[in-house]
Amino acid sequence: MRIAILGGDGYLGWPAAMYFAARGDTVLAIDNYLRRRLARETGSEPLLPTPDLAARCARFEALTGKRIAHRIADCAEDGALSAMFAEFRPDAAIHFAEQPSAPYSMRGRDEARLTLRNNVATTFELIWAVKSAAPRCHIVKLGSMGEYGTPDIDIEEGWIEIAHKGRKDKFLYPRAGGSLYHTSKILDTDLLEFETRSGGLRATDLMQGPVYGHCSDEARDDETLFPHFHYDDLFGTVINRFAAQAACGIPLTVYGKGHQRRGYLDLRDTLQCLRLAIDAPPAPGRLRVLNQFTEIFAVLELAERVRGVGARLGFDVAIRMLDNPRREQEEHYYRPAHDGLWKLGLEPHYLSDDRLAAMIEFVRRRRDAVDTSRILPRVSWA
Amino acid sequence: MRIAILGGDGYLGWPAAMYFAARGDTVLAIDNYLRRRLARETGSEPLLPTPDLAARCARFEALTGKRIAHRIADCAEDGALSAMFAEFRPDAAIHFAEQPSAPYSMRGRDEARLTLRNNVATTFELIWAVKSAAPRCHIVKLGSMGEYGTPDIDIEEGWIEIAHKGRKDKFLYPRAGGSLYHTSKILDTDLLEFETRSGGLRATDLMQGPVYGHCSDEARDDETLFPHFHYDDLFGTVINRFAAQAACGIPLTVYGKGHQRRGYLDLRDTLQCLRLAIDAPPAPGRLRVLNQFTEIFAVLELAERVRGVGARLGFDVAIRMLDNPRREQEEHYYRPAHDGLWKLGLEPHYLSDDRLAAMIEFVRRRRDAVDTSRILPRVSWA
Repeated sequence: MRIAILGGDGYLGWPAAMYFAARGDTVLAIDNYLRRRLARETGSEPLLPTPDLAARCARFEALTGKRIAHRIADCAEDGALSAMFAEFRPDAAIHFAEQPSAPYSMRGRDEARLTLRNNVATTFELIWAVKSAAPRCHIVKLGSMGEYGTPDIDIEEGWIEIAHKGRKDKFLYPRAGGSLYHTSKILDTDLLEFETRSGGLRATDLMQGPVYGHCSDEARDDETLFPHFHYDDLFGTVINRFAAQAACGIPLTVYGKGHQRRGYLDLRDTLQCLRLAIDAPPAPGRLRVLNQFTEIFAVLELAERVRGVGARLGFDVAIRMLDNPRREQEEHYYRPAHDGLWKLGLEPHYLSDDRLAAMIEFVRRRRDAVDTSRILPRVSWA
Repeated sequence: MRIAILGGDGYLGWPAAMYFAARGDTVLAIDNYLRRRLARETGSEPLLPTPDLAARCARFEALTGKRIAHRIADCAEDGALSAMFAEFRPDAAIHFAEQPSAPYSMRGRDEARLTLRNNVATTFELIWAVKSAAPRCHIVKLGSMGEYGTPDIDIEEGWIEIAHKGRKDKFLYPRAGGSLYHTSKILDTDLLEFETRSGGLRATDLMQGPVYGHCSDEARDDETLFPHFHYDDLFGTVINRFAAQAACGIPLTVYGKGHQRRGYLDLRDTLQCLRLAIDAPPAPGRLRVLNQFTEIFAVLELAERVRGVGARLGFDVAIRMLDNPRREQEEHYYRPAHDGLWKLGLEPHYLSDDRLAAMIEFVRRRRDAVDTSRILPRVSWA
């Protein structure tokens, strides 16, 4: 298959590029290094300095013989993607090309504007690139479980049948995100829903929970092929951040009561889910929504897991409860469906002590590079 | 009160500016003449050449002694509204500053991009202008009944309690617009919902049906104060267009079966609804949604009403059924609630034969100015 990966330099985009190239697909990775720039501007560089896309593609090819084509380009630019798609003619396009941090989007007006503008524009340009140059291309967009918020009823997979005053109909599941970033993803979904319904596109919206892990199998233990590992408050996902804190003797910072429950998944399962979605595309005119996580944890429970594993490795790990910088419910009902990917054949890697230990060890080996000033929350929703 | 009107040059914005100035409010009308430019570019100029905002404000002041301040500025420009609000400090801001045509938004990629970018950016800039410079300002945004689409259950006013698997919760009513324009309005609502819920703003979303009428009372029969009257397929609302067709001996063009039902209202009732919303603002942190129309008609029924009134005026009016250029349901359930504005005191002007006759007469007097080539649909959704 011919697969375009928008945001192919990212934490998930780069492992996805290797994953599909490794299995023999023709891969084009596109990125404008936006995340690199934002990390620099906010003092949030990743743990390892990551080689640029050209260097990583070259290294991967040297190691495996598999080629990953790449382009440094802004997917949000008027018509840029259309020109690339006219040449590349993808069968599937995986859309990671978004500003991905909730706290970054809540930092102030400029950050909110950049998030909204970039994320909606990349989705719009992708839709038109497909319409104009590759009409049968399957759009696989990374959404977020955070689009649903924490409603008091079961969360279904994207769609819900509503019975109301003796009648019923089926609708997009109502969404209420907890940040401007999550709201931008809701806008993406609205756009895709309209274009699939009215324009006959085919799309999958993967409503993903927070991902953890410092590497995927295709990196073959070559650290230059690891994705950038963020342990900071802006770009670090919570389990990665806890692993870094444990490795550095910094108390694990739990926001609020820590009873917030979310669905999590291993980076390797993100790749598996992408493959399952791509290999079984929906019919034209259909927006398929899949809730992408493997197990649910409360934040405090995760902190305790990391403390336990850290203790076995000889680290003295404390847990520190912080006033919640976010505006979110700390006690809530949470029962999201996630059957779709299982039905497609998902074989999950559940969070294991071994995986946590490997992450803690990974950080410990380069503990001197950790900047402890970027771990406490620097952005408040208030 | 101090009232900012974004899109103050428009079909509704200009009558609103006069209406609030007439009752003694301090009004600032802001517009960048986007609609004028789009009408020129698409060969869709209004029936009367409309004097510019400066000339109309001067004329209104000469006639009434009431001043309307105005600014020619782009509300979508980064920070432009914030600077204006820091000076003007509005108590309420009425947001009409959007590309308002569904067919225009479906014309092609450039038109779709302009619609999405302009509409979402103006809403974003308005939110931040309020947050930064006038935090107690009440945002009154013009939404569209078309955001709901035509679901098979009753349409509530913006919010719906969903009972699901033995539990229940309240959500934004699910929306599915019939055009990119309507989708852009859905995105607006999502943004406002997030900002009211998380940032404590107060906002009213007026989900308006198609408006008809060639003038409002404050114009005092002075045609230089009438809003621009569009009878074309892009910017003309259906009843205005039918009135023009009747006056010119052009068959009334009904799309598809004509059984599409929508809620309509008189231009004068738009003004009344704005006043009712502004005089009873919601509490901070609340997004109030009001469905703004006074009566429901099927398109064919409207055509028959116009034909009847035309006949009494001596016009031989035919009805011509066209293949529907839009993608919409032509037979559908439609039962939208609209109690909110009634509870606030709305006294509707129902569609009368007199009002229709006045509209037909208004066009007849300047029939020579009508360009018949712009009446048949020039844009197809397919």
